[in-house]
Amino acid sequence: MAKRTPSAHQSWLPAANDSANGFPLTHLPYGAFETEGQQHLCVAIGTHLLDLYECAASKLLPRSIAAACQAAILNPLMALGPRSWALLRDTLTELLHISVETSRRQVAEAALHSIAGATLLKAIHIPDYTDFYASIHHATRVGKLFRPDQPLFPNYKHVPIGYHGRASSILPSGIPIQRPHGQTCPDKPDGAPGFGPTKSLDYELELAFYIGQSNPLGTPIPVGKASSHIFGISLLNDWSARDIQSWEYQPLGPFLAKNFATTVSPWVTPMAALEPFRAPASPRPKGDPKPLPYLRSSADQRSGSLDIKLEVFLSTNTMRANKLPPFLLSRSNVQDLYWTPAQLLAHHTSNGCNLQIGDILATGTISGPSPTSAGCLLELTSNGAKPIALPTGETRSFLSDGDEVILRGTCETPDHPRLTLGECRAAILRAHSPSTA
Amino acid sequence: MAKRTPSAHQSWLPAANDSANGFPLTHLPYGAFETEGQQHLCVAIGTHLLDLYECAASKLLPRSIAAACQAAILNPLMALGPRSWALLRDTLTELLHISVETSRRQVAEAALHSIAGATLLKAIHIPDYTDFYASIHHATRVGKLFRPDQPLFPNYKHVPIGYHGRASSILPSGIPIQRPHGQTCPDKPDGAPGFGPTKSLDYELELAFYIGQSNPLGTPIPVGKASSHIFGISLLNDWSARDIQSWEYQPLGPFLAKNFATTVSPWVTPMAALEPFRAPASPRPKGDPKPLPYLRSSADQRSGSLDIKLEVFLSTNTMRANKLPPFLLSRSNVQDLYWTPAQLLAHHTSNGCNLQIGDILATGTISGPSPTSAGCLLELTSNGAKPIALPTGETRSFLSDGDEVILRGTCETPDHPRLTLGECRAAILRAHSPSTA
Repeated sequence: MAKRTPSAHQSWLPAANDSANGFPLTHLPYGAFETEGQQHLCVAIGTHLLDLYECAASKLLPRSIAAACQAAILNPLMALGPRSWALLRDTLTELLHISVETSRRQVAEAALHSIAGATLLKAIHIPDYTDFYASIHHATRVGKLFRPDQPLFPNYKHVPIGYHGRASSILPSGIPIQRPHGQTCPDKPDGAPGFGPTKSLDYELELAFYIGQSNPLGTPIPVGKASSHIFGISLLNDWSARDIQSWEYQPLGPFLAKNFATTVSPWVTPMAALEPFRAPASPRPKGDPKPLPYLRSSADQRSGSLDIKLEVFLSTNTMRANKLPPFLLSRSNVQDLYWTPAQLLAHHTSNGCNLQIGDILATGTISGPSPTSAGCLLELTSNGAKPIALPTGETRSFLSDGDEVILRGTCETPDHPRLTLGECRAAILRAHSPSTA
Repeated sequence: MAKRTPSAHQSWLPAANDSANGFPLTHLPYGAFETEGQQHLCVAIGTHLLDLYECAASKLLPRSIAAACQAAILNPLMALGPRSWALLRDTLTELLHISVETSRRQVAEAALHSIAGATLLKAIHIPDYTDFYASIHHATRVGKLFRPDQPLFPNYKHVPIGYHGRASSILPSGIPIQRPHGQTCPDKPDGAPGFGPTKSLDYELELAFYIGQSNPLGTPIPVGKASSHIFGISLLNDWSARDIQSWEYQPLGPFLAKNFATTVSPWVTPMAALEPFRAPASPRPKGDPKPLPYLRSSADQRSGSLDIKLEVFLSTNTMRANKLPPFLLSRSNVQDLYWTPAQLLAHHTSNGCNLQIGDILATGTISGPSPTSAGCLLELTSNGAKPIALPTGETRSFLSDGDEVILRGTCETPDHPRLTLGECRAAILRAHSPSTA
């Protein structure tokens, strides 16, 4: 990609040029919002959103993509393919650029709404949801807690481990999560298991990749062609009930411990916006095996990962009552993952499994090498054994009712505007009363 | 349900009264077929199918359900709820009964097609697919192969173990399955894993329950109310690649070993047709723990299971060339399951997980107590160690290319016509060539 001078990225919308906002002209993440009882697609720009339905109605968009931009969800646009994605992006970039002619700018201005006052909705219909386990730091640290002798299974460095999640309970950012009930391990070997609200509710900091192009059943996607099948990304919080998980997960994996809710950022950052933040695949430590050929591509090794800084914040009822800002729990980076997105996708389809437009492939918890870069409380508190002290004097082993978890992602590189991914946040509601169980 | 004399079940269609056919007047399973380039809903009767779209167009159906019967899939009809399901069933039973007036009979006759000449399609859009592990005989026998010291994990008798399957690769009966490629365990501890076509392709004999009524996220369905949420059943074959499975499944469960294909019978038997075949829950052996209260209902214990005889047949290329009939591999019965369908559904929603109309809950492999009643080759051949001898002189440890697997289900009880579930069959195609990988 040719380098541009910073002025190339100037918009006529002042807030888009303020680096404090994460939605500059080079970002343009997709979303959906409610307007007059209808769901319209939009892109974020500065502190505003641009209504794509209105842009199409006002003839600001090429005819070939206008109908897809007037759909309620992004799936029809995704189905048009990468050329159409680029065409729309180029059109919107030109329209919002400082050099656009006044007449078009005025029409676009009429399609702007403040994000602050908008109700954001789920922009993508998600048919299937797959969750991976791509952070070796997460897998090792969790493994150490439960299997000190063998933290990593022998397959980890060969197989991008993954499992199927539940698509029906994926929620957009902002919807509160109800603490789930579940079965837990008996206190003594022959005792009855417990059943009640989970006592170890956790978050997991993840990145979600949206599939933008499908593959027919029986036709694998080679690792070298994987990137053209990915439309964009969101932050994702894979809520987890650790006490339920540890009792139910053998031998078929997590189930009710995870499927009660998953939160995604409502803004979908297109892969095109992330080009300047591409990064080499995480170097494998000496002695680690090379990935099998079907997982290897030199282009992917060179630039298949992403330099995205991630942060997790916690805000408790007490913190909000005392007007304290959210507390930073951890920092990590997508670059630290052991497997690249293209490797996850190539592996997923290596047996012919068909991915569909709108499917999510999530990374699994993104933890870095240091203990403070752990992407969940299970790691940060050593499964509750070492509670975290908060500025209020409160402590947390796991999440309490009223706690709000906020995931943030930031992309920074010299000579390019800073992007922030759409925020992913949700608060915990107390469990339902037994009478409704 | 009041007892009827056998003549109460007589249809004017002679084939419907022949007990050799499994689709008597009391069955009326739902399906979909292709006609003049369109997909129409239908029910099976005798050797024919009745086009529901045509019935609605000819004003044979009540107005409140006519539009749903003219949809391409069953989901809109399911969304109308149990009263509408009963209304449609009563209307069709009357219409096909020997006592119907000639004028209506003649209009119905015009909507009949021979099943033999029809192309059957997938009648239900399946949003999510959950697979359980409800046969203790299967779990114990598989456990013995891999963990002789501890065949069953301590959770098995308390938790209906389940995991999420892949909905995108569910296929209707008759579509051949391509042998998948995959990664397999290295031959020696520090060696590279293998990658190629699976050498241990297996079937799994299962029953699928279709969710007919959804529950909102956060609202569990009590075990006593579960049955009203189930619309009907199909046979289901959960194809499995055992070599891929044993290498990938720790710690998050099966993934690529299962998600390349799942075959369902195209005929959906409504729960109403199964009322005469209800059976008590399988009695728990002395010493087994009682299920927790959220999994217990006296009505469910009394009649929450189903008396459905199941059979698996194998037909090889050589058998077909020699005009030999398919070979019976095993026999089992749904009654042998450790958990009832209502318990599976109550458990699935006990944490608030939302089920959607059209979702499948599958039982997992249905094996009986005897070794000959095992529902997969993994059990029948002791993971390939004891190959099965076929009448042709061939042997099978696992499935070969060209093999066809046929699942059948039969319901029999005195004074009631015999039903057979729609057949679930598919053949194995050889793996794709490496050049397309």
